[in-house]
Amino acid sequence: MGDLPNEVEIQEEGPREGFQIEPGPIGSADKIRLIEALAQTGLRHIQVCSFVNPRLVPGWADADDVVAGFRSAPGVHYVGLWFNDKGLDRALAHSDKLTLSGSISLSASDAFTRKNLHRSHAENVEAMRKQTRLHLSKNVPVRRIGVMAAFGCNFQGDIAPAQVISTLQDGFDIADECGVSIESISLSDTMGWATPQRVERLLGEVRSKWPHQRITLHLHDTRGLAVANAMAGLRMGVTRFDSTVGGLGGCPFAGHKGAAGNICTEELVLLCEEMGIRTGVDLDALIEVGRMAEEIVGHQLPSELLHAGSLNSLRRKASVVH
Amino acid sequence: MGDLPNEVEIQEEGPREGFQIEPGPIGSADKIRLIEALAQTGLRHIQVCSFVNPRLVPGWADADDVVAGFRSAPGVHYVGLWFNDKGLDRALAHSDKLTLSGSISLSASDAFTRKNLHRSHAENVEAMRKQTRLHLSKNVPVRRIGVMAAFGCNFQGDIAPAQVISTLQDGFDIADECGVSIESISLSDTMGWATPQRVERLLGEVRSKWPHQRITLHLHDTRGLAVANAMAGLRMGVTRFDSTVGGLGGCPFAGHKGAAGNICTEELVLLCEEMGIRTGVDLDALIEVGRMAEEIVGHQLPSELLHAGSLNSLRRKASVVH
Repeated sequence: MGDLPNEVEIQEEGPREGFQIEPGPIGSADKIRLIEALAQTGLRHIQVCSFVNPRLVPGWADADDVVAGFRSAPGVHYVGLWFNDKGLDRALAHSDKLTLSGSISLSASDAFTRKNLHRSHAENVEAMRKQTRLHLSKNVPVRRIGVMAAFGCNFQGDIAPAQVISTLQDGFDIADECGVSIESISLSDTMGWATPQRVERLLGEVRSKWPHQRITLHLHDTRGLAVANAMAGLRMGVTRFDSTVGGLGGCPFAGHKGAAGNICTEELVLLCEEMGIRTGVDLDALIEVGRMAEEIVGHQLPSELLHAGSLNSLRRKASVVH
Repeated sequence: MGDLPNEVEIQEEGPREGFQIEPGPIGSADKIRLIEALAQTGLRHIQVCSFVNPRLVPGWADADDVVAGFRSAPGVHYVGLWFNDKGLDRALAHSDKLTLSGSISLSASDAFTRKNLHRSHAENVEAMRKQTRLHLSKNVPVRRIGVMAAFGCNFQGDIAPAQVISTLQDGFDIADECGVSIESISLSDTMGWATPQRVERLLGEVRSKWPHQRITLHLHDTRGLAVANAMAGLRMGVTRFDSTVGGLGGCPFAGHKGAAGNICTEELVLLCEEMGIRTGVDLDALIEVGRMAEEIVGHQLPSELLHAGSLNSLRRKASVVH
C-alpha cells in the first residue's frame, strides 16, 4: 500500500444533495447554518445549492437567498450546480461568492439519460455542446467532464468500461470542438453499482487513455460498498472525492425509496486520516456538524461513524486512563 | 486483483449476536423462524445461540428451547457459544444438533479483558488453559484461537500488531501445553478500529508467522469501514468471515449506544459475488431473510443493501426492458 496518495481533496456536497431530497421543507436559515459550520471544519470545497426549476425541485426554491445569506469563510471555494441557461444566469448573479465552473456532463447509460433527461445520448451530446459554448460566451470556464452511471444503471444493467471510455471520448470531442482544455474527469456511481474491482478496472482503463487527467470519484453508498470503493480509488491514485456530511442525500433516480445517500464525508475522512492521507478536515468538528445536519433534517442519517464517534476521541480518553 | 480467493466461507452470527443485544423480548418462535430461514439461503454455518447466564443476558434465557425447537437442514453446521463449564454442559446436551468446537479466546487489550471479564490478561490465559482442558476432558475439540480487540480498543487505544502476535503466541502456548492442534485463527475488530491498512499489516505479520493457519475476520461496522476492511482481508487471502444478516448486533462494550453491528452478511455476499468470489449464498433469498429479521426486531437494521435490493434483481428487470 506504499502508493496511497499523501493527501486528498474532498468536495462536500451535503447541502446541495441533502436538501434537494429531504421531503420536509427546510428553512433557508438552517441551510445557511450548515454551510457556515461546514466551512469551519477544514473543508475547502462546498457545493452549497442547486439553481434548478423550483417547480421540479422545491427544496432549492431558495437557492438565491441561501447564497446571498451565508458568510464566506476565507480559503473556502463555494460552488453551485445548474443544468441550463437560466440556472447559469442565476449562478452568475452570485459570482462574488461562488467559484463558477462548468462541466460537460454525460451518462454512460442511454437508458438513464432517457429516464433522467428525456433525451437520447446523441441529443445530450448536442445539448452539452451548446451548453459548453454558452458557458464560454459568459466567461465561465469548462474544465471538467463528468460521467454518470459509470459502473452500472438500474435501468440498463451493467456498464462496461468501454462504454465509459466511449462516453468520455464524446466529452473530449465536445471540448475539442469548443476549444476547451479539460483538466479533470469525474466518474459517478450514481446508482450504487460499483465494486472495488470495477473501480480498479475502470480507473485503470481511464488512466491509461488519459494519464494526465485528475480523476474525481462520486460514490453512493446504496449497497454499503462506498467506502470499499473509495479505498479502491485511493489505491488507483484518486485524489479527489465528492461526499456528503452524514451521508445526506440519496438517489431520486434509483427507482426505490430508502436508497442510501452519498458516501459519508466523515467516514471518508476517517478512512484517509487513519491511513495517513491528509484531508485537512477536523473529524471531531465534522462529526458535530453531522449531528447538526441530523437535527436540521429531523431524522437519523446513514453515517455509522456519526453515531459511534471518532477514534481520536477514544484515544484521548484512553490516554487519560492509562 | 488476480489473487482474490475463489470462494469464501461465511459464518452467520445474526441469531446469536442480534438477539443478545436487542432491548425487547423476542419470542423463541421468532428466533427459530429466523434460523430456519437462514438455513435455506445457502449459508452453511449458523451460530444459533449463546449458552450464557440468563441473569446477565436475558435475551438468551431460551437458548435450550431454541436449539431444541429448530429443524436442522442437511449440510448446515449449527454452532453455539459458551464461556464456562455450565455453558459447555448445556451445549453438550444438544450435541445431536450442534457442531461442538472450543476456542482459546483472548483479547489483545488488557484493558478490554479487565472491563469485559474482570480479569488480567495473565488470569485470562490461565482461565483459557483450564477451559481447554475441560473441553478435552469432554471430548470437545479445540482447534481455534480467537483474539478480540485485535485492531484497537475503546479503553486502551491503538493495538500494535506485535501485541496481537504476542497474544496469539499465548494462545499457541496454551494449545501446546494441552496437546491441542490449532487449525485456525480468528481476529476480531470488536470495537471498530480496523482500517484496510491495519488489516493488511496485521494479516501480513500473522501469516508470515503462522503461514498454515486459516484466518477468520470478525468485523464490526462501528464506523462504516467494515466492507472496506473485508475487502482488504480478501486481498490478503482471508477465506472465512463472521457476519450477521441485516447487520444485526452491535457492541455492548463499545461504551456508547447506537454502535453499528457486525458487517452485514448480505453486503459481504454482494461484495464477493460481484467480484466472482463464490459464497454459496442466494443473495435475493438472504435479503428476504434480512427483511424478516427487521420485522422480528421491530426496527430498521443498518444494512444499506437490505433496503436497496440486489443488483441481480435490477439486472433481471433491465434485461426485460431492453
